[in-house]
Parts: sequence; structure tokens; C-alpha cells
Amino acid sequence: MESHLGEDIRARAVGAALGNEPFDLVLAGGTVIDVGTGELRPADVGIVGPMVASVHPTGARTDSADWFDCAGRWISPGFIDMHVHFESSMLTPGQYAAAVCPRGTTTVFIDPHELANIAGVEGVRYAVEASRGLPVRFVVQAPSCVPPLPGLELSGHDLHAADIAEMLSWDEVGGLAEVMDMGGVLSRDARMVDIVAAGHQSGKLVSGHAAGLTGPALQAYLSAGIFSDHEVFAHVDAMEKLRAGMTVELRGAFDFVLPLLVEELGRLPEFPTHLIAATDDLFAATLLEEGGIDDLLRRLIRYGLAPARALRIATYNAAYRLQRTDLGVVAAGRRADIVVLSSLEAVAVDDVFVDGRRVAHGGAMLEPVTEAPAKTPLNTIQVPPLTADDFVYRLPGVPDGRHRLKVVEGVVMTEWGETEVDVVDGAVVIPDGYLLNVVVHRHGRIPATPVAGLLGGWGHWTGAVATTLSHDTHNLCVFGRDPADMAVAANAVIATGGGVAVVGEGEILALLELPVAGILSPLPAAEVARLQAEVGAAAQAIGLPPGPLTQPLFSVMLMSLACLTGPHVTDIGVVDGTLGELVDDLVLS
Amino acid sequence: MESHLGEDIRARAVGAALGNEPFDLVLAGGTVIDVGTGELRPADVGIVGPMVASVHPTGARTDSADWFDCAGRWISPGFIDMHVHFESSMLTPGQYAAAVCPRGTTTVFIDPHELANIAGVEGVRYAVEASRGLPVRFVVQAPSCVPPLPGLELSGHDLHAADIAEMLSWDEVGGLAEVMDMGGVLSRDARMVDIVAAGHQSGKLVSGHAAGLTGPALQAYLSAGIFSDHEVFAHVDAMEKLRAGMTVELRGAFDFVLPLLVEELGRLPEFPTHLIAATDDLFAATLLEEGGIDDLLRRLIRYGLAPARALRIATYNAAYRLQRTDLGVVAAGRRADIVVLSSLEAVAVDDVFVDGRRVAHGGAMLEPVTEAPAKTPLNTIQVPPLTADDFVYRLPGVPDGRHRLKVVEGVVMTEWGETEVDVVDGAVVIPDGYLLNVVVHRHGRIPATPVAGLLGGWGHWTGAVATTLSHDTHNLCVFGRDPADMAVAANAVIATGGGVAVVGEGEILALLELPVAGILSPLPAAEVARLQAEVGAAAQAIGLPPGPLTQPLFSVMLMSLACLTGPHVTDIGVVDGTLGELVDDLVLS
Repeated sequence: MESHLGEDIRARAVGAALGNEPFDLVLAGGTVIDVGTGELRPADVGIVGPMVASVHPTGARTDSADWFDCAGRWISPGFIDMHVHFESSMLTPGQYAAAVCPRGTTTVFIDPHELANIAGVEGVRYAVEASRGLPVRFVVQAPSCVPPLPGLELSGHDLHAADIAEMLSWDEVGGLAEVMDMGGVLSRDARMVDIVAAGHQSGKLVSGHAAGLTGPALQAYLSAGIFSDHEVFAHVDAMEKLRAGMTVELRGAFDFVLPLLVEELGRLPEFPTHLIAATDDLFAATLLEEGGIDDLLRRLIRYGLAPARALRIATYNAAYRLQRTDLGVVAAGRRADIVVLSSLEAVAVDDVFVDGRRVAHGGAMLEPVTEAPAKTPLNTIQVPPLTADDFVYRLPGVPDGRHRLKVVEGVVMTEWGETEVDVVDGAVVIPDGYLLNVVVHRHGRIPATPVAGLLGGWGHWTGAVATTLSHDTHNLCVFGRDPADMAVAANAVIATGGGVAVVGEGEILALLELPVAGILSPLPAAEVARLQAEVGAAAQAIGLPPGPLTQPLFSVMLMSLACLTGPHVTDIGVVDGTLGELVDDLVLS
Repeated sequence: MESHLGEDIRARAVGAALGNEPFDLVLAGGTVIDVGTGELRPADVGIVGPMVASVHPTGARTDSADWFDCAGRWISPGFIDMHVHFESSMLTPGQYAAAVCPRGTTTVFIDPHELANIAGVEGVRYAVEASRGLPVRFVVQAPSCVPPLPGLELSGHDLHAADIAEMLSWDEVGGLAEVMDMGGVLSRDARMVDIVAAGHQSGKLVSGHAAGLTGPALQAYLSAGIFSDHEVFAHVDAMEKLRAGMTVELRGAFDFVLPLLVEELGRLPEFPTHLIAATDDLFAATLLEEGGIDDLLRRLIRYGLAPARALRIATYNAAYRLQRTDLGVVAAGRRADIVVLSSLEAVAVDDVFVDGRRVAHGGAMLEPVTEAPAKTPLNTIQVPPLTADDFVYRLPGVPDGRHRLKVVEGVVMTEWGETEVDVVDGAVVIPDGYLLNVVVHRHGRIPATPVAGLLGGWGHWTGAVATTLSHDTHNLCVFGRDPADMAVAANAVIATGGGVAVVGEGEILALLELPVAGILSPLPAAEVARLQAEVGAAAQAIGLPPGPLTQPLFSVMLMSLACLTGPHVTDIGVVDGTLGELVDDLVLS
């Protein structure tokens, strides 16, 4: 991975450090957060071009082309987000950068897993191309699990070891992304073994996904040569992984984990370098309202972690994991990716410098962000217009009358349930308190035949929601009780090339257009956030429950996740994620 | 750099971790030193082939082909020596490995700087070839400064950026070695800039040598993109470098630095990951009698550093610097490079495992070490037999009579002095209390014309010492007062293809033959150590002062170091290391 600065710049920096020529810029009068030693030290930071040329006693140098007053403020290295699917924001790379940069994130280790599931290698290439030259440094990972569970769901593409090896050969690609097919890893599934081997052979990082792994299974997963995880659901889980030598990519998704983890960390004789920070999946609305890495750090500090230690996680530790000697500290010779904070405790980001240029102030970019030309995946929804009849739940071969059915109980975290239904004229009458979930393959690889299942525990709905942003395969997922409403919602997102639609009484109540790959909007973050809020509110108005995640809409977007335990409806059928198999017959009697 | 384990081994390890098949070996009943968290934790370590497959509660697993009892003992990752010129031991790679491995060193980041100065790229290739398959993992660096000071001394080869780039392209080469031409770096000397650029462009590590650099000069050196140093002479020096974000490769050479540094480290809020361990230059005798990395750790612990923290420096921190995820911790999925200690405080190494194989016990290798075939540099002394007349100090154009001369005062750390001499029949009469130092180019690139200078402060000598191991260019250096003795000593080492000879009253008192490149012996470490002691004792008997370094002989071996400050005699002339220039005329009057 190319990370070196040119020798011409270094020559100027050496000259400036020696005092033979002025700096381009000095950040003056602030307190540098030395994330390596944990000290807070008054110092001035001399910058030449994209790099720090000198960190010296306050006022020691008076020759600079430009000055930036940091009096009373703190100077931190830029934050590094070590595991993120930027697609979950629904923003394109440029707008994503514009959303996270003003909050201090200057480098992101992204896994374009969603784009890859839709557009394959070309989807990853789009992420690489569109992220070039942005004010946030994108280090791209090669998605490892496309699709996550072959045979149980169908993506737009199947990526095999050769595809992975090709992506890993690109300079912009820094590693193999979270290997989420834990079952495949532990059972030594040939395809998965070859994919992980491609990661190892590249000499680049291999990242993991070790949800719920403990004891022998955790040791086995590590033995497969996968040394990181972001799926920590409890502090004991996190501590077991840290003690096993696994790098924990700590995310803020489950806030209840953090206070207890902070307490445990305080009891360790040594603070692990293998604890780093991540955001994983966040809506644009969450990024703008609460923040990303800054929000995580803020909470960690609130729960008792020393501020310099919190920052260390997101800077120094991250750079070590990323094997980037040019990042992670405010020190001579390194890239001038710098965050100026007005409050250390509150991680209040005032100003952000990337490669020596001030790019953000007061929560906003100083200049509009422009994306490099890229081959954007458009028109990816290969589904003809649907009719109300496509959303009638039929059970082939089952006569009219009363029957007992297996149903999916729960929101995202599901289990099998049972209910009685009436079949009238060959169609299931959706019982009170239940919802129909229809999934339609949208990538054109098999006919777009609706697959249906009943959901329990979703409350009473008076309308329908359709979404083409639906992890991990992003097929068209429709939720509702009324076939006509469901068809209107589905056709709305088909017509716009993808998106999220909420329909009530035959009318479109809210529509978030996501024409890029059917999951991203080209609009600015604030606009997307507004639409997310609007769609979320409309969905809640027609019955969507709050759900367990940061945003209610995540519930519909994650219901097709076959890699979770419990039953889920996919484009292929109703699958049992725990057993990893398709369930052919849902009719019990 | 190739570091991955094969997927076949990983498959077996996954199976064993899961309990589906037995381990090959379990280290049972010991206490694992968790260098990541600083905890000491009872645990068993299951090994499969070359790797750790599981670290689990003591006794949790009872199925293993083999067992190794660690009851009452500590289990540490193997030690990593992050900066070493193995040539200073005078051992070939195999014998060097046999010397350090039983003391716990399992990986060495070597700089074959001496071999490169003698034999160029082929010298480095010899180090690569001869170190393959040894029980110590050699990661080789490309020597950056061959010769260290062009124009002031002549090596066997001049290496330029193209040579460096070639070596950096080899899989076995992990980085650019200590960039010791600090002046060239700071003045942006074109040759040095190109060499450092080759390091940066390779994407591999670039290591430094920042002796005495402080303030602006240190910041400038860092700005050149060189982020490590082992030349710390004081705790304040070390702390300034750590605070500047520079990785400190801490060595034990200057013991007085350590207690104060331990005290300073204890005051830091956070322990830096960028503090690592190194031995730099140690005789075989020192390695066998006192130790290498183990001796450094032992002293650090004695001075108050927590044992787990001391070990962290030489394991976890080192692996991060080396960017090797397979090393540095005792954890599933990593290489089973493991040290079993009977005393943690005393760093008492009982057993050493490398790649899962027990290779050493009780201070000795379990099997003889065999070197891989390599093209060994022999017959490298290109100097014809010399006569007593070659060791007569003449001052061309200076008439007989009394004259005032500039002389070199001091042992290794030198300064200019003056003295009066008589010139009789064109020859300088060596005054009482002075020594003649004659250096002869030995690489055949210029005529082997003796260059002479007077040394003060070396006591009263009754014989002569000749050495072809003489940093950094390893020309033939002869010390004495009697031309006949000096010629006998010189001819002894010329005849043996290099070495160190001590002569008194015309007789060879002791001879250490170093036929490999004129600096290494093919003999086992114990034999070389015995000869080093014998030669050292003989040299002290004829007048060699104890000197400031670990071994008295270092004084003669380092007197030609033009890169040190002060005056030194080289094969080209008497040079001023401070000014970086040749001093043409030593006659003051």
C-alpha cells in the first residue's frame, strides 16, 4: 500500500525543521495529545505541505507562512475508523467523507461489502475510484463473503478466491474484509479456505467477524489466521477476545457494553494496543446527529476512560493495526492529519486538517467535496413492475381451510414461531398481529419470483414498506399486510432504481431514492439524513416498531440477513440461519 | 515479506482447537505471560505443527500426542531483537543462532552492515542464504550506508540506491537498515536521499541511527521519514525521542541509561508501544557469559520495570514495529515461538520452542545447528605481506628534527591533541605514552598503502595488535610502537584471511582467525568466545586499556570509525569526523 510522502516534500520539511526555511503553517499555542505516552504537552506543530515537520516548544519558532491559533485547545491525530461499511450511511464516498470528516475522522478502513454483493468486483472498483482524493483517506478492503451464505441467498455476484486475489493486488486495497462466514471457516469449507488463503498470501491484513464465538470456537477461528473482530455484544466477550490476542474493533452500536468494558480495561496492568475503534453501520442521520468515532470516544470518556487513552484507541493503536507508520501520531515526518478540539472530555472537534490542509471547521467542510469520476453502478434493480397479486401469500398444494404455519418471530434477532391461518381461495389471510415479508431477487440471476413468509412481533401495520437496501444481498424486501399497498411500495423503489418507500392506503407517504446500486443516494448528507428521518417517521406511523438498533429502519433492512441466527426470509426461501439450511415446508398441519 | 502459515496446517489447528483432533503438543500447567494485557494467567498452550492452536484453561484438554510440563514456570513469546549486527559476535549466522536461541531470542532483525561493507550485495546475500532455516528467524535489513562516509574511508563496495532497491525487493529483506549518515540525511546529500527514497518506495521499514540528535536536528531527521533509533546515550535522550514519536530500539550497551529510563517510563500515563529491544553489537563471549536480549530484560526488571512490561518490549511491541501479526504473542493462530522461564524476575530461560519445535534447553541447543549452503565470502584480505618498514611513521617533506604534530587523543571517543616528536632519518620516533595506528586498505580497490597517525591516551604498550574486524569498512588496522611487532601482527591476520592477532617481542601471543569475510569465524560460539577472551587478555597484557565498551577489543575495532565525532585514522587518511573532512597536514611546526 502506497503511503510514502515524496522526497521533495521531505527535503522542504527537513529544511524547515532545521530552521533553514519557514514552515508553511504552524498550529500554535495548543496542547498536543501525545497518544504514544499519554501525556498532554503544550507544543507548536510546524507543517510543510502534507506533513508535520516539527513538534517543538510553544513559541520556539516564529517563521511560518501561515499561523493557526490553537490557544486553549487540544491537538490530536486524526481519527481512524477501523471497520466501516460506508454504504450503511446511504451516502456515496464523497458525501460520506463530508459527513464524518468535520467530526474528526480522517482515515476509514472500509469494507464495501454491500456494493460487492450488488455489483461484484466492479462495485469495489467504484468504491476505490470514487474515494480517490477525498478529504478522508479511504483504505479499502476486499469483501470476503459475497454472498455471505451461498445456497441460502443470492447476491448480484459470487466472489471467489481469484476475484479476492485480484482486488487484494490493487494498491488501494489494504486487506481482506471481515470473514463473516464463521461456519465456513470452522468447517474448512473449500471456498472460504481459498478466500482466506488469498488474504494471507497477499501479505495484507485479514479482518474478522467473530459474533458470539467463545472458548474452543474462538480459538479455532483465530487458528484460521483471522485476528480481529467487531462483533462484541458484551464486555466479557470483548475481554475474552482481547485476552486471546484478538484485535477488538470496538464499535458504539451496543452502548451497554461500553461502561463495563471501560471498568475491565481499568483493571488490566497494561492497556492493549490491540483495541481499536470502528463504526460498522451508521445512517447519515446518526452520523450528523450523534457522530461516528467521536461519539464512541465521547461515550468511552464519559464512562471513565482517560481521554488520551480513548484517543489512543482511534489513532495510535489503529495505525499500528493498519501497519501505517505515516498515521496515528502528531509527530515530525508523519502526515498532518490533525484534529483540533475545544474540549478534550467532550471530544468537541473544532477544526480538521488532512494532509496539512484545513478542510473542516465547526462541524462543516470548508469546501464542497468533489468525487473523482467513477463508473457508478446505476439501474441495478432488475425486477419488472409487480402487481398486488405478487404480494398474496400462497401455499402451493395446500387446500383452503385452517392451517398451522411456522412463522418468523421477532425483529432482526428472530426465532421460529407458529400460528394458525385461514387459506381462502388459495390465499393465506394474514392474521391479526402478523406481517407479510416478501423478498424478490433483484439482480437478474434468477427469475424475480416473490418469496414470502409471515412475521410475528412487529405490531399492527396500516401500510407497507419496501426497501432495496437490505443486508447482505440487497434484494427487494417488502413488508405489509395489504397486497395493493405492498405493490405500490415495491413499484416505487423499482421505478427509482432502488430506495426505501413507505405506503399507506395506496399512497406513497415517503420515498428515499437510492439510485446508486439501489442503496446509495447522490444527495448531500444533510438531505439524505432528512429523508431518512422522514421515511423512518412515516414507517413508524404505519406501524414499524422502534427496533433494537440505532435507527428503526434498520429492522426492515436487516430482516433478510441469513447470516444471523434464527429464521429469515431471503430471495431463495425461508432459511434457518442457526442450522444454515433452507426450510422447504412451513405448513405444520 | 512472507510470513503466513499454510492452510493445511491451519486446517489441522482449527480441528484441534475445536477438539475434533488432538494437539501435537501441549505446554501444560504453566502461567502464560499475556504481553498484550500485562496479565499473568494460568493456561495450557495447544500446539499444532509450527503454530499455537489454542490457549485454554489449565487442564481443559487432555488429548495431545505430546506433553511438556510447565508447572511452576512462565510461558512467554520468543524474544525479538530489533537491531543487531550479528557480525559483531564474530560468528556465522548458524553459530550466532545457536548462541542466542537458548537465551530466548527467536527472531532477529539483522543489519549485515559489516558484510556489506566488505562484500557488497553478495555479502548481504550470504547473510540471507546462510540464515535460511535456522532455529532463529532472521529478518534481514538492507544496509543503507556502505560506506558510511564516502570520501573519508573506502569499503569493499559502494552501494547506491539501485543496489539498495534490489536488496529491498528480496522477500527475506524486511527494511532499510539504520541510516547512520545523519549528516547526509540532514544536508539532503543526493546519494543518501536516493537510498532513503528506495526504502520508502519499497513500503518496508526504514530504521534510523540518531546518535546525539536533539531538538531541531531530531525533528529534521524524523521529517526525512526515518522513525527509529538505537543510539540513546542518556535517559533524557531516550525520552525526547519517545515523545517525538520515534521508536526507540533500546539496547543494553550503556547500562547507566537504564535505571533512569525505567524511572521516567514509570511516570508516563501510558506505556509506549514504540519502545523495543535491541543488542546492536555484542561479542560471542558477551552473549554466552551475560546474554543478549535476556540480559537487557533482566537488568530492566532489576531496575524496577514490571516483568510483563519488560517482556512486552521484546515481544508484542517488537512484532508491531516489525509489522508481523504472526509473532509477539502466545495466542492461537500465531507462530509457536515460545520461551519457558523458570524465573520471571531473573528471565531464566529453561526451554525454547521455535515454530512449535523445542530447540533449546538449559542454555544449549538440543541439536547441532546446520547452516544452509551459501556462497561464503573467503579470501577477502587483498594485502600483500608487509614489512617492518611499512610501520615506520614518515612525514613526507618534513626534515629531521623536533616537530609539533596533531594527534588523536582518546579511546574510541576521540578529540584532537598535540605533541612534540623527533624525526630521525625521516622517521618519527614514537614518543612515550603514544601509540602508532596504521590503517591499510584491504579491499584491493586502491593500493594497500599504510596510513598512519599517532594515538594518545592508550597507555604504555609492549607489543602490537592487528585486526581486520574494524568498523565500519573493516580495513586492516594495526596498533603498536615497534614496527617489527606490528608487521608480525599484520602478516598473521593477512595469512589467515583476516582476524585479530596480538604480538609481543616478535612472537604471536594470541590469534583469532576470522577467515569469513575477514570478520567471522566458522567455529562454534564457545570456541570463538574462548579465543576472544584469549586475544583480549593477551592484548591487555601488552597494554590495551579496558576501554569504554563491553569488551576491551572493541577499542581497536572501533578506532577507525569515521562516522564518530573527533579524529580517526582510516585507509584514506586522518579524518575529522566532526567536520566530515580529511586532514591533509598534521604537522603544526
